[in-house]
Amino acid sequence: MRVYRGTFKVEWVHCDAAGIVFYPQFYTLFDQATERLFTANKLSYAELSRDFDSPGMPLLETGAKYANASRLGDTLAIESWVESWDGKTFLVKHKLTHADGRPALEGFERRVWIKRDAARPTGFRAVEVPEAVKSRFVD
Amino acid sequence: MRVYRGTFKVEWVHCDAAGIVFYPQFYTLFDQATERLFTANKLSYAELSRDFDSPGMPLLETGAKYANASRLGDTLAIESWVESWDGKTFLVKHKLTHADGRPALEGFERRVWIKRDAARPTGFRAVEVPEAVKSRFVD
Amino acid sequence: MRVYRGTFKVEWVHCDAAGIVFYPQFYTLFDQATERLFTANKLSYAELSRDFDSPGMPLLETGAKYANASRLGDTLAIESWVESWDGKTFLVKHKLTHADGRPALEGFERRVWIKRDAARPTGFRAVEVPEAVKSRFVD
Amino acid sequence: MRVYRGTFKVEWVHCDAAGIVFYPQFYTLFDQATERLFTANKLSYAELSRDFDSPGMPLLETGAKYANASRLGDTLAIESWVESWDGKTFLVKHKLTHADGRPALEGFERRVWIKRDAARPTGFRAVEVPEAVKSRFVD
Repeated sequence: MRVYRGTFKVEWVHCDAAGIVFYPQFYTLFDQATERLFTANKLSYAELSRDFDSPGMPLLETGAKYANASRLGDTLAIESWVESWDGKTFLVKHKLTHADGRPALEGFERRVWIKRDAARPTGFRAVEVPEAVKSRFVD
Repeated sequence: MRVYRGTFKVEWVHCDAAGIVFYPQFYTLFDQATERLFTANKLSYAELSRDFDSPGMPLLETGAKYANASRLGDTLAIESWVESWDGKTFLVKHKLTHADGRPALEGFERRVWIKRDAARPTGFRAVEVPEAVKSRFVD
Repeated sequence: MRVYRGTFKVEWVHCDAAGIVFYPQFYTLFDQATERLFTANKLSYAELSRDFDSPGMPLLETGAKYANASRLGDTLAIESWVESWDGKTFLVKHKLTHADGRPALEGFERRVWIKRDAARPTGFRAVEVPEAVKSRFVD
Repeated sequence: MRVYRGTFKVEWVHCDAAGIVFYPQFYTLFDQATERLFTANKLSYAELSRDFDSPGMPLLETGAKYANASRLGDTLAIESWVESWDGKTFLVKHKLTHADGRPALEGFERRVWIKRDAARPTGFRAVEVPEAVKSRFVD
């Protein structure tokens, strides 16, 4: 799978006192969309651990630009994909669009590929993203 | 420490579209207050693991009764204590009160005391709460 | 709709440091399931406001009993229904079950039916749940 | 107040399955720190509404760069300040530092100053940040 496509219905649990999505919720959504994209490519956390000796995909940088507010009851389309593989890191992009076509927001996560390394204080070290990973992100 | 006493200022991050605390936030607060009470008694998660071979304090039951809504800007007092030690389980109670004395809500968590046990599928088993734990919850 | 039935896949966003669902997340799930059940019966928050002059469904009491831990990667079935209509209040029950049939947890929310009332400090008052509401919760 | 300074103790409620802070929690922390900085300058949400006819401070862009992971039990210092007033928008910066001086992360929020405007579909319009606001952010 190259692009994860999902639907985000804005519910009470997502909204702040202004009746719009509390912005940190979008980052939760990003994290979830990344997990779903990777899981669709047989890279769930269990598979990352078992097949690639990886305890996760730590974040280096994240960000979002907000275009139009997302209100209680709105239904958004979300698309998430790996924009680029950059050696030991990779860039995931997320795009949310209102049902009427207006952009809602765009965001990104730069993550690092890691492998367990008991000799390090963190318990892991950064390594090149394996070809066996990258090759799965195609349609 | 017998009773943890803290202050909960209702901020934007806690509120729902009605401008009051989104109720699951209170359970987050309960979990946090329990951790603070135990940490004050040298039972932080690191100490639980090191001193009692315990990976945590799983929940058996939780609940809350809501008396008066907590609004953006309100300041509440929170009190949390172990109501009873009951063999392998224990009951933590939480009480939140508005600045003007009106009750906000009361809640509880029933938790179980555990020890690591590699032979079990869960990795732990329930054991009696040690005397060395119970004796710390006094003023 | 009498019973809302959904699926809850335990993802990274739901888990705590023990790799299981952080328990307040279940209450978020309860709130979401209640909204979905009501929305399926044309009682979304927008419809509650427009058709019943109601600003929401405040909580009086909530609770949950946990049977078997829900781990990263687990898929649970959730069922939610109104257990009883009790004058001005009503009881919503939630039941989560593991894919292998083991119970995960059961929970409830007691909520109150309200109508806007500008004369009250809270801006609303409790009223009997309308027949026009109750009659929708049938299959 | 020019700089809000607070302490962030990493507790169970903040952590993910890797035992470190789940990254969206940092954005919740940013939102909270911004509210505390503004509240210290008599710009709480209640005061924004009453004194400046403002329903809030919407986000245009947010972001964070992560340097060193924040683990359960860590204590971080947080500093938050308005980096620049830029006409109708302003930039808030957040810096979190570990107790041993290592950087944890840096983040920002670009927000827009608004005033209620019933003629607009959103209910508000962007306006220049008032001098009466900017002048409060001094020591």
